[in-house]
Amino acid sequence: MRVIVALGGNAVLKRGQQPDADVQIANVRTAVKTLARLAREHELVITHGNGPQVGLLALESAADPNLTRPYPFDTLGAQTQGMIGYWMQQALQNALPGRQVLAMVTQTLVTAVDPAFENPAKFVGQVYEREEAEKLAADYGWTVNQDGRYWRRVVPSPAPRRIVETRLIRRLVGEGVVVVCAGGGGIPVVRDERGRLTGVEAVVDKDLTAAILAEALECDAYLSLTDVPRVMRDFGTPRQSEIGHTTPHELRALDFPAGSMGPKVEAACRFVETTGDMAAIGKLDEAERILDGSAGTIVTPNGRWPLTSTL
Amino acid sequence: MRVIVALGGNAVLKRGQQPDADVQIANVRTAVKTLARLAREHELVITHGNGPQVGLLALESAADPNLTRPYPFDTLGAQTQGMIGYWMQQALQNALPGRQVLAMVTQTLVTAVDPAFENPAKFVGQVYEREEAEKLAADYGWTVNQDGRYWRRVVPSPAPRRIVETRLIRRLVGEGVVVVCAGGGGIPVVRDERGRLTGVEAVVDKDLTAAILAEALECDAYLSLTDVPRVMRDFGTPRQSEIGHTTPHELRALDFPAGSMGPKVEAACRFVETTGDMAAIGKLDEAERILDGSAGTIVTPNGRWPLTSTL
Repeated sequence: MRVIVALGGNAVLKRGQQPDADVQIANVRTAVKTLARLAREHELVITHGNGPQVGLLALESAADPNLTRPYPFDTLGAQTQGMIGYWMQQALQNALPGRQVLAMVTQTLVTAVDPAFENPAKFVGQVYEREEAEKLAADYGWTVNQDGRYWRRVVPSPAPRRIVETRLIRRLVGEGVVVVCAGGGGIPVVRDERGRLTGVEAVVDKDLTAAILAEALECDAYLSLTDVPRVMRDFGTPRQSEIGHTTPHELRALDFPAGSMGPKVEAACRFVETTGDMAAIGKLDEAERILDGSAGTIVTPNGRWPLTSTL
Repeated sequence: MRVIVALGGNAVLKRGQQPDADVQIANVRTAVKTLARLAREHELVITHGNGPQVGLLALESAADPNLTRPYPFDTLGAQTQGMIGYWMQQALQNALPGRQVLAMVTQTLVTAVDPAFENPAKFVGQVYEREEAEKLAADYGWTVNQDGRYWRRVVPSPAPRRIVETRLIRRLVGEGVVVVCAGGGGIPVVRDERGRLTGVEAVVDKDLTAAILAEALECDAYLSLTDVPRVMRDFGTPRQSEIGHTTPHELRALDFPAGSMGPKVEAACRFVETTGDMAAIGKLDEAERILDGSAGTIVTPNGRWPLTSTL
């Protein structure tokens, strides 16, 4: 099978951990134990988040006295693709001797007419008091918004249209290369008025990017792997229950938190609706059990998996 | 022909310029005008420096209150490969519609027994007063050394042995992909006692890395492109004169400054001695005239170029 894995942020940096390089490298080496087993059985494409890492580099850049303006989010995203990509590439090379592994710089095309640019809604970076936030907004041209008791910067989160490097990714995966790409949802770019690709100040949702990449690569399975074993129905209420095998239709009738499980469910539904193939949400270290149908929340057109059992 | 270009640092950031992203992106777009013309005629591999960029990110990291320890140089180098690689990849894609372009995360294997690890000699980052430098050395395990009136951190600069991703680079270049790789001399790695690749605190000379990559890829020409038109004999003296066509033997009889022209001349000599092919040092915007023999300092086994004219 051709499998795409969208790694949750905790695979690289767990909540509460120091963001030191050695901590993150140790996490990556652990995650790669599972990924390497998948790569021995399947064509494998790996995407990953970059939330904490890009937030940290954005703060460093904003505090850098050598810069007139902090680096924009396309450049910061590219820094994290190099850094996390390097950690993953090296760990995968160590785990898969004789196999080619490549972390790619990957751009995600969005459009300048996306309504998200009129309504920046994705919180990024640290929290500020209102006055400080408004000063930063004036100094740097940021948009800021209230997030609970504090204020934070917001950036647009436009819909991903296409991974610019799709053709090259498809070729490499087809040749057996383990590809790490589209980190952090991909570096957001638009075509400018002269038709040129150019970076924009935005953050693309990494789950949606992974789903459209999975569609373009005609993956057989889209796995969104985090630290929760299954999607929960009525999460946080006395009635909460795990969802095992399901369909996009059933999932779309439920409500999920916008910031966390929502985009994962949306991405999984979208992939299954578009391709008729299988998507799943579950724990990273249960990836093989998810593929054989005995773990995770598994989404297929008719709620059955493996698909062959429906004959 | 298969051509490798080692870009001097000024192609991305010129001395005295602000290191803002938009400034560097504009420089890259200018450099790419020449590179795109080369890519239309030849198989092209592009390497580049990262001195100012990695220095800046190292400073940001050292000042980051969220980190227990600043990011080590392998991780910082990977950040710059992502950032500069993205700028180049995008500019090349814009200049070469229909052509595949890829910026690769690239590791350079060095060995732990390299004498450079006993004698760190490569100055990196900013200057400090002696007392401050010694405190930083104690706090972070740095080695520091006197650089003129001030003190600076020094890191080992071991000899590059091999680009870990050589096989993949060769395959992609052979398929017509324009490859950007080995940025900043490559991310320095060693094989640890368990045989695993692991990053080290070092900086590999980018010209030497480019030369061993050119040898491994069996490039026909190795072009070291900067902002000086030719190598000078007796530079800075009343007798100074430009060197046009020459041989490794002639060049090795001369002295060049260790920090600037020395490594470029060494890399060019090494490539020509090993392969019998052509190396050149000259101005980026004269690259095509260098290849036809009418500009630059051209190094061949017998001092003639094009080589076919010797028949």
